[in-house]
Amino acid sequence: MSNNSDDSKTIYVGKKYPMDYVLAIVTAFSGSDVKEATVKARGRSITTAVDAVEIARRKFVKDVKVETVTIGTEVMPPREGESNSKNISSIEITLKRK
Amino acid sequence: MSNNSDDSKTIYVGKKYPMDYVLAIVTAFSGSDVKEATVKARGRSITTAVDAVEIARRKFVKDVKVETVTIGTEVMPPREGESNSKNISSIEITLKRK
Repeated sequence: MSNNSDDSKTIYVGKKYPMDYVLAIVTAFSGSDVKEATVKARGRSITTAVDAVEIARRKFVKDVKVETVTIGTEVMPPREGESNSKNISSIEITLKRK
Repeated sequence: MSNNSDDSKTIYVGKKYPMDYVLAIVTAFSGSDVKEATVKARGRSITTAVDAVEIARRKFVKDVKVETVTIGTEVMPPREGESNSKNISSIEITLKRK
């Protein structure tokens, strides 16, 4: 989790359990001045990101709504020993406190 | 894949390979009168749905854009022998030919 500025935070979702990211989302909105946070994920973690957002929104930060969801493709440079770069799907979910 | 009307189709993404659903998306847009299609998925298939949409949009139906993406939660009734219903995340991606 990185802190872009005082009022916008980005949560990167990886291979942990959804509840770990739920906690990150709830923490991001813990300050009353925080109005917006963005949840980003790639590949298989996309499902985890959607799960985490849905759990957080329904059970913990009920005044937070999904503002926008965008999907895209990122190009990953080839790993050592590989020759081709890979395309990987990504998702970006922007949450806003109403 | 069901056919709601002449100009709107819904593609349900499940456990097959992304390319199977890419084919379904390309087929849905094969008629020149087709302007819109919706891709729906639940749980672990959400990633497959995003992959299929991204591959279709980038490689096959380049005049098709992602119009809206919505995420939500569906309640699944308990299976036989289980007592609790389950919440499962869902995604709905609407594609539009520009």
